[in-house]
Amino acid sequence: MSQNIPDLPEPAHPEVDSMLGRKFGKEVANYFSGSPLNRVSFLRTDHTFLSRAIQHPSTSFVLLNNLWPLTKSPTELARISYKDVEPLIGEEPFFQPEEDQIKGFNSSTYIPQLLFLGLDTRIPDSLTYKEYYTGAPYFALDVTPKGTITDAATALIETLEARSLTFISDRMLLSLSAHDAAIYATARQVMDWNLRNPFCAQCGYPTLSVNAGFKRACPPSDLAAELPARERPPCATRTGISNLSFPRTDPTVIMAVVSADGTKVLLGRGKRYPKYWYSTLAGFLEPGESVEEAVRREVWEEAGVRCGRVVIHSTQPWPYPANLMIGAIGQAVPGGEEIHLGHDPELEDAKWYEFEELRQALRVGTSGLGEEAGQEYREGDLRLPPKTAIANQLLTAVVNGFVGVESESKI
Amino acid sequence: MSQNIPDLPEPAHPEVDSMLGRKFGKEVANYFSGSPLNRVSFLRTDHTFLSRAIQHPSTSFVLLNNLWPLTKSPTELARISYKDVEPLIGEEPFFQPEEDQIKGFNSSTYIPQLLFLGLDTRIPDSLTYKEYYTGAPYFALDVTPKGTITDAATALIETLEARSLTFISDRMLLSLSAHDAAIYATARQVMDWNLRNPFCAQCGYPTLSVNAGFKRACPPSDLAAELPARERPPCATRTGISNLSFPRTDPTVIMAVVSADGTKVLLGRGKRYPKYWYSTLAGFLEPGESVEEAVRREVWEEAGVRCGRVVIHSTQPWPYPANLMIGAIGQAVPGGEEIHLGHDPELEDAKWYEFEELRQALRVGTSGLGEEAGQEYREGDLRLPPKTAIANQLLTAVVNGFVGVESESKI
Ligand SMILES: [Zn+2]
Ligand SMILES: [Zn+2]
Repeated sequence: MSQNIPDLPEPAHPEVDSMLGRKFGKEVANYFSGSPLNRVSFLRTDHTFLSRAIQHPSTSFVLLNNLWPLTKSPTELARISYKDVEPLIGEEPFFQPEEDQIKGFNSSTYIPQLLFLGLDTRIPDSLTYKEYYTGAPYFALDVTPKGTITDAATALIETLEARSLTFISDRMLLSLSAHDAAIYATARQVMDWNLRNPFCAQCGYPTLSVNAGFKRACPPSDLAAELPARERPPCATRTGISNLSFPRTDPTVIMAVVSADGTKVLLGRGKRYPKYWYSTLAGFLEPGESVEEAVRREVWEEAGVRCGRVVIHSTQPWPYPANLMIGAIGQAVPGGEEIHLGHDPELEDAKWYEFEELRQALRVGTSGLGEEAGQEYREGDLRLPPKTAIANQLLTAVVNGFVGVESESKI
Repeated sequence: MSQNIPDLPEPAHPEVDSMLGRKFGKEVANYFSGSPLNRVSFLRTDHTFLSRAIQHPSTSFVLLNNLWPLTKSPTELARISYKDVEPLIGEEPFFQPEEDQIKGFNSSTYIPQLLFLGLDTRIPDSLTYKEYYTGAPYFALDVTPKGTITDAATALIETLEARSLTFISDRMLLSLSAHDAAIYATARQVMDWNLRNPFCAQCGYPTLSVNAGFKRACPPSDLAAELPARERPPCATRTGISNLSFPRTDPTVIMAVVSADGTKVLLGRGKRYPKYWYSTLAGFLEPGESVEEAVRREVWEEAGVRCGRVVIHSTQPWPYPANLMIGAIGQAVPGGEEIHLGHDPELEDAKWYEFEELRQALRVGTSGLGEEAGQEYREGDLRLPPKTAIANQLLTAVVNGFVGVESESKI
């Protein structure tokens, strides 16, 4: 069985000259992080910049069809030129300043969602804007056949598929190279947010995508409505900065909990996991909680275990649909290790695993959720998530001495 | 000048017996974390539990009027009994299971927002439910005079103010004791989320508060509408789990950036800060970013400085309106320290400060935003945020040896 095992992103900087690096070791970079793009987020409102970027010869479009990305191979996104997408987006999608777009808002006009993702600064001889900003522009475009673009989108999709490019299921994406995975993570999350937020949660009226796809404005009028309904009621999102106007990211805690004596790790099993498969516990952070508190609450709610000290290990963007995974390592308090699944009936099982069994499973028992384990795996042994999952990185850190009796003698 | 300096929360567990504690030191607990309540979040859908909790003699209500909390003193929330709020919420606000509440949804009925915050497990002889759950229940209630409760709420507010209880501005709350600040943080954030999300962002129709205030459902029908409009169109939030139905928390990075040689820290000044006041840089994490990447992006966008290794220090809930502050310490790469404010014009100024000047400012120059500095402070010297802000904790960690040349000799 040949598995497609993608590379993990490299941390942005070598640690060799850094006091922080010497004290805390190398930064752990997780899959879906490590984008090669500079977002230049402050240029998203600059329609002169966007107009130049969209038609530049070095520009690439990442295409999504119902959130599935167009790919050249399982490891590589397809990069499409402006010429190909022009029938969908027209000559000048950014010809107006945002104020004018908002004034001319017509909720009955279908505009395919377009996102400016950033500049790939590694590409020489590409766009230069003002003095500082150089790189090959990246956009993402929703080509789902819908509304007034149905025919043009269908035709484009046929053309692209004739070039052997394929839209692949967005759940199969853990094969993309590290850089392309990171580009896709942002594109998918922001696209999905736009598609699922066509209305203003504050006033109930339709909203308009602005800031090159990174904001939704609630316009004060709508040309699609008859007068006097054309003027819409006041909305609080117009009179101040409201988080409702910006993409949402849900902080999620995920934690390897070590026993009080530092020899075992707590793992749990969701109801739909494949046979023999366990993972670290995880859950959404709640309002008014620190990360450390969320870890302790979730561990108690899901497994009845009482966790003491918590250390944050690394973080991972996870665009299904909008999570920030905050990876932590915690330690149970002495006497707090008894497992009880009856509080929140989320897990089917939870167990303490010895480091040695984890080491073995990390070596031969990992795979993606839909895939089979490696050749050396023996039926009945523990199975674990692949290294593209932060759960795997947390367990790897623990068995390699992040905490535990074995590591103590080494320090 | 006597300033009200609140206590900081204690970390939940002593570190003395913990290997993680010995390796990483004491956990830093920030203001607004450290709630004494067990949320028992899985009981929020249990209307039998909620019905018992709401009328229990040990139950406390935290009252909010336009998000301002009722207080007994600047350090203490007022705890109000069921009897006092009964005219607003009736005898049995949780008499129905959620399915029936959703079936009977009528968008024209005003229901004051009620939240179940958790059980204070420190209180003996309080409510016991099933075998495991013991404590004094806490609810938060919106008593803003509105809709059908206008008269009852106005009367209640008068009664309470006659008892010398006061609603205090929600921006002045950094005087509350650590426990009350944490209780208020959750109450404010979840209340505000309910009040600002009366409509479904997916379909535009009114929503209904369920899960004791921690979820908003999009009901399939609305008794306030005439037939056939009573049956509402399909909505994707009904057919799967959607994050739109749950409170939103925005991950925010805040970072003390140390120079490459470990002797200085980068601080910035917002346009509306008081004179001489600086703080650490901060900004919202974006979709598809790790925390470490968000730190590097923000430091470059706001100050032009290039940051290398990043370590997460601690986190802080910040309910204005819904932030999770993720506090980090980063280090500039050699040669990347030149300040440039022209990318994102958010800061009025940014500067590198020597550790010694920071130590002095942390000792005599800290205060709340609206307050004056301490007596020893000399006009013209650096001013910094108070210890209730995570910025202060990050700077304290840095000057105390988290990273830097001075600390290196100590390690
Ligand atoms: Zn609105
Ligand atoms: Zn809906």
